[in-house]
Amino acid sequence: MEPQMTNPIEGALDAAIERLNLTQLAALGGGASFWESKTAPGVPSFSMSDGPHGLRKQEGDAADHLGLGASVPATCFPPAVSMGQSWDPALARRVAAALAEEAHAQGVNVLLGPGINIKRDPRCGRNFEYLSEDPFLTGLLATSWVNGLQSGGVGASLKHFAANNAEFDRMRLSSDVDERPLHEIYLRAFETVIRDAQPWTVMCSYNRINGVLASQSRWLLTDVLRDQWGFAGAVVSDWGAVADRVAAVDAGLDLQMPGDTSAFDAAVVAAVEAGTLPRAAVTRAARAVARTALLAQRSRREVTVDYDAHHALARETAGRSIVLLKNESALLPLDPTARIAVIGSFATEPRYQGGGSSHVRPTRLDIPLDQIRAAAPNAHVTHAAGFTVNGTGNQDALHADAVEIADAADVAVLFLGLAEHQESEGFDREDIELPAEQLALLEAIAAVQPHTVVVLASGGVLRLAPVAATATAILNGGLLGQASGSAIADVLFGKVNPSGRLAETVPLRLQDAPSYLHFPGEHSRVRYGEGVFVGYRGYDARDQDVLYPFGHGLSYTTFSYEHLDLHTTEDGLLADVQIRNTGSVAGREIVQLYAAKPDSSVSRAPQELVGVGSIDLKPGETGTVSIAIARRDLAYWDDQLGRWVVEDGSYWITAAKSSRNAQLSQETTVAGDDVRSPFTAESTIGEVMAHPAAAAVAVAAFGPLMPQEGAGAELGMDVMKMMASMPLGRVIGGVDEQSAHHLQALLGGLNAAVFA
Amino acid sequence: MEPQMTNPIEGALDAAIERLNLTQLAALGGGASFWESKTAPGVPSFSMSDGPHGLRKQEGDAADHLGLGASVPATCFPPAVSMGQSWDPALARRVAAALAEEAHAQGVNVLLGPGINIKRDPRCGRNFEYLSEDPFLTGLLATSWVNGLQSGGVGASLKHFAANNAEFDRMRLSSDVDERPLHEIYLRAFETVIRDAQPWTVMCSYNRINGVLASQSRWLLTDVLRDQWGFAGAVVSDWGAVADRVAAVDAGLDLQMPGDTSAFDAAVVAAVEAGTLPRAAVTRAARAVARTALLAQRSRREVTVDYDAHHALARETAGRSIVLLKNESALLPLDPTARIAVIGSFATEPRYQGGGSSHVRPTRLDIPLDQIRAAAPNAHVTHAAGFTVNGTGNQDALHADAVEIADAADVAVLFLGLAEHQESEGFDREDIELPAEQLALLEAIAAVQPHTVVVLASGGVLRLAPVAATATAILNGGLLGQASGSAIADVLFGKVNPSGRLAETVPLRLQDAPSYLHFPGEHSRVRYGEGVFVGYRGYDARDQDVLYPFGHGLSYTTFSYEHLDLHTTEDGLLADVQIRNTGSVAGREIVQLYAAKPDSSVSRAPQELVGVGSIDLKPGETGTVSIAIARRDLAYWDDQLGRWVVEDGSYWITAAKSSRNAQLSQETTVAGDDVRSPFTAESTIGEVMAHPAAAAVAVAAFGPLMPQEGAGAELGMDVMKMMASMPLGRVIGGVDEQSAHHLQALLGGLNAAVFA
Repeated sequence: MEPQMTNPIEGALDAAIERLNLTQLAALGGGASFWESKTAPGVPSFSMSDGPHGLRKQEGDAADHLGLGASVPATCFPPAVSMGQSWDPALARRVAAALAEEAHAQGVNVLLGPGINIKRDPRCGRNFEYLSEDPFLTGLLATSWVNGLQSGGVGASLKHFAANNAEFDRMRLSSDVDERPLHEIYLRAFETVIRDAQPWTVMCSYNRINGVLASQSRWLLTDVLRDQWGFAGAVVSDWGAVADRVAAVDAGLDLQMPGDTSAFDAAVVAAVEAGTLPRAAVTRAARAVARTALLAQRSRREVTVDYDAHHALARETAGRSIVLLKNESALLPLDPTARIAVIGSFATEPRYQGGGSSHVRPTRLDIPLDQIRAAAPNAHVTHAAGFTVNGTGNQDALHADAVEIADAADVAVLFLGLAEHQESEGFDREDIELPAEQLALLEAIAAVQPHTVVVLASGGVLRLAPVAATATAILNGGLLGQASGSAIADVLFGKVNPSGRLAETVPLRLQDAPSYLHFPGEHSRVRYGEGVFVGYRGYDARDQDVLYPFGHGLSYTTFSYEHLDLHTTEDGLLADVQIRNTGSVAGREIVQLYAAKPDSSVSRAPQELVGVGSIDLKPGETGTVSIAIARRDLAYWDDQLGRWVVEDGSYWITAAKSSRNAQLSQETTVAGDDVRSPFTAESTIGEVMAHPAAAAVAVAAFGPLMPQEGAGAELGMDVMKMMASMPLGRVIGGVDEQSAHHLQALLGGLNAAVFA
Repeated sequence: MEPQMTNPIEGALDAAIERLNLTQLAALGGGASFWESKTAPGVPSFSMSDGPHGLRKQEGDAADHLGLGASVPATCFPPAVSMGQSWDPALARRVAAALAEEAHAQGVNVLLGPGINIKRDPRCGRNFEYLSEDPFLTGLLATSWVNGLQSGGVGASLKHFAANNAEFDRMRLSSDVDERPLHEIYLRAFETVIRDAQPWTVMCSYNRINGVLASQSRWLLTDVLRDQWGFAGAVVSDWGAVADRVAAVDAGLDLQMPGDTSAFDAAVVAAVEAGTLPRAAVTRAARAVARTALLAQRSRREVTVDYDAHHALARETAGRSIVLLKNESALLPLDPTARIAVIGSFATEPRYQGGGSSHVRPTRLDIPLDQIRAAAPNAHVTHAAGFTVNGTGNQDALHADAVEIADAADVAVLFLGLAEHQESEGFDREDIELPAEQLALLEAIAAVQPHTVVVLASGGVLRLAPVAATATAILNGGLLGQASGSAIADVLFGKVNPSGRLAETVPLRLQDAPSYLHFPGEHSRVRYGEGVFVGYRGYDARDQDVLYPFGHGLSYTTFSYEHLDLHTTEDGLLADVQIRNTGSVAGREIVQLYAAKPDSSVSRAPQELVGVGSIDLKPGETGTVSIAIARRDLAYWDDQLGRWVVEDGSYWITAAKSSRNAQLSQETTVAGDDVRSPFTAESTIGEVMAHPAAAAVAVAAFGPLMPQEGAGAELGMDVMKMMASMPLGRVIGGVDEQSAHHLQALLGGLNAAVFA
């Protein structure tokens, strides 16, 4: 955990809050403008900016009322969809540190990110802003990102809290989720980041959870966030997420955004005066806002941003984020002296970020075609648009030109993807198809050119079966930010050996997605019917084929997994994985550790990601990656006990190249948590009989009542099996004094036997 | 609807109830013994018996305390699993009428059935007692059955009410189901039967629904059952289902079974005296019990049962229930002069019913091998056991003998299935596999004998892919009752031309089942995560391949669908389907009608069964089946309005041979229900703009606030799309007096425009 900056400001904070009257306290709970908090005596303002893969600081001091104005240029790093594919927490930290510098340069104190919602369904319009379908990977990357940003003196706003996994009807939609998937999937990464990085703020989401608006959920904002997880920062509303400020403050919201909120401030004062809102809640909110402002004030620095260096970092990050999905006959890397036909309008107008609040105005933009030419000055590079994104122009002619240059070349590099208007904040996709004309172009090109590389750009996952069946090699970029073009060139020519891994499964068909039948919902509700079986957890649990599994990604070299050693540590396990580069070029291997608990007492996924590591190896070199597996990552959420539980006994730990490419597995034993709870009238005969000491007590007590061995033969059934499900209270009754006494005596005896 | 026998008894009932004091009233709410209700002055007792495919009347007057004793012989008709496959309501009615006769002969007044729970998951241990995965088919058959029974003067007990779809932890398990699947899938058949047959009693189930025990659910037993559906009979508890009688009576339970319940009776009296239970609830319960007793008293008849005729009916029913799944090269019907190797221990010890409370002691039992010999006296019939169900004996030798006689014959008839101990009330299956040794035997026999018929017996669905890949022909019997052997012989030799249809999908793999990941639950809860997508609804919605679809079944002849005519009627639609027997033997065709509403406003299955008809046709004959489609069967349950809603507009009606074998489709237009509701502060801008009259009002009001065309280009997004999801109240605020006034004025204007 990072050192916290709380202590130095607590004194000033207390002093400031004490001086404020109710009206001033209430006022602090509402924004001053679209991007700034209010001041009060002793309390400065702090300013926020959209993000999080770059700064969207609006120009001028008068942001328009919808926050839609132009923003000042900022480095556009790869959005989360691609950052997630890096599987590289150290890189996330460096990017966030760079973002902190740019924020300081613009006077921004809090960057509104990271977005760490789980990619529940491929159609969610905002998936490009999120990291993964897996909560462990999401938590790992986001923790580093927040630590990087906040170490740089800029606060994070962990969003969108919580269970905000669709854009459909997003201001009203209730995500109806059971307790286990909530904790294990949807809250898990939030819990991790809050525990390990203490973000300055958390942004509550627009949606409802099980019927209650996130902004008004005491369970979410107080019971879970503060009481269970120990969050010490401020809860900020998503812009416009507050419907009832009084209810929100009571539940745990601190800052309503954006301004102007004066009517709401007055309502808060009135509610306190009417006795319907505790004054302590208003003070808590004001204190949290003031704390953030003081943190911001003390964290301000003068920086001179080296935008060139940031561009280089954006390029490095993009290179690390590209996933080599397929590379038949080792077509890649390309021969830099070949005749290369570059096709697709995305080669000259790259798609590199998503639409909406995260949209950044880049400092510069690397064009793929230019970068390919620059990277291979001795190649013969031709270009044809092949299609236009908006369908204008003579598509037949464009198509014919592209086929012609492909035919004349040694290799075709085809840039395919989704247009900006096809995916954005604010709406969900209805399918996961590439435009039909792009697929037709690919078919036509592959028909004349046996060496076809496809480079993909999209914010959401695509149905790639037709591409995989046709292309020789596939690079999956996601959205790569402003250095998209140079990073793609780096990988195409082998300057960068790809090490990215899918952070989201590529299914064979949308219909296979675990959430398929339950998205986006209707009548302002969506049932998360697939429960904990999100992403690979669901595909694995149903043993369904997928096109490219979670964690998949190839390299220009090969690695062999030589040895897996597991050690028990104080807080879990330590895995040493010995890897050898068995190929002919240097490369980086992402090592994935999955845990399985096949005899679990609850319905769990066949495997869950619990560890990630990486290693750079030269050809022939061997090295060891040591990865700690935290005990907590072996746990499931017990909805009866209301806490995480590590089960006792055997676990299998697998070191893998992807979720479907296991390399080495080892069994280990973990001492579980104590989950015994006292027998009650609701305990069944079967539960009693499962415990030897209790069984002895029960047999003595029940003997005469129990059916004899062989009873039920007349009914063709096993009566003992049926009796096993009977609760003790249903057998004994317990209604009259005598049977109540009998029941209590039995329970006493059973519990004494078990807890003795 | 059947004429009800209520009126003649209401006077006597009122008089009897008025004379009873609180203690007597309370006492009527508990059973007198394992199978009988209590008497009171003016109130006789009535007796109940397990069923429902035959009478399980226990011998002697002292039933043991678990109700496990031997029962008197009774005709064992095909259990529900097979009755469901007949798709024949008239047959169900005749069977029930025969059951009524047998009940009278034994002094039984109420038969505890039918069981009409939906087959949610293939593993449910009690699926053999249920009719189908589809609520329409279930309701159709059960309504006829109840009408047949009650017309015969014996009461039904519609069970298990409700959402009791697993045996796992069955006394505690909470079925967590959303409102739409509850009403559309799990309650639907109950609603149909109660409306169309008014059963004397309903039996509440053991389980919880959304956390509340069925026996204590006011929502279930009063709001839905009585207030919404108009149920006028008595609610009886499943045996041992009552945990808290006071809470149960308050919720709507009338009769706690079995006896002795005196301590509970006293608790009811005490609760009324303490003012915690309304006396009216106790009176309601007593009145319902007394009403049933008076109905029973007046319905008693002297009958002489013709058990031979009932056996013949059992044989007819079994013949109608057999499904011809596959018949390559028209292997069936068999040549009655062939050399026939009959293999499998089920040929001599047939599996014909399930274990548990429905287990009947048959009056006689037709043995398949004997019946085959009797049906084909000129055939050369050999027999080998091939395997033993319990694995005793020399399996290798049994196996070898079977292969030998198969090799020597013209055709092999192989009886495969599950043993009684593999499926029963009280526990669920863990897989849907046939025993491996049976599959190995099939492989070995098919290797020497190219003409292999498999006859299947099981209560639950099986994974039949290996059978389908190997056998030449397959007869799926389910559990066929005591005439199993003769009915199978009838079909094998073509005396009966099979017309049975699958009432449950046969999936390719268990993992494909919509409920696969959510069964049987854990920690006493099970989430019905697949929602309304149960059975074929789920396979269809995901466009998943299945082995044999719902509704599938072949015939020894062929039918062509010549014409489909749709007419609008007062209560829905009328479909005339013209069918022609294009084959060479007489046969019976089951005509299935499915409705589709592709542009539905809610997430619906691609098609739903809404009509069933049948027709017997001689070779070359043409006939017309007229099937009414009730308007209510086109509806979905609207969880916002809390009622069934028929949507306006276009529907597709398809006449089909199975859910995946459409023959004729026609589009029709249905005038929908009025679903307009007033605009509120929660209505979104998108909802307003979707209504032209309201849109005009909104544009006038919002004009200055709305973003200009093209706004958001800077963010790469469509701001209008995003604005569409904003609730009016969130835009206007409505917190201070001025904006509240503004909001009210706007809503007034909008509603005036729409409802003018």
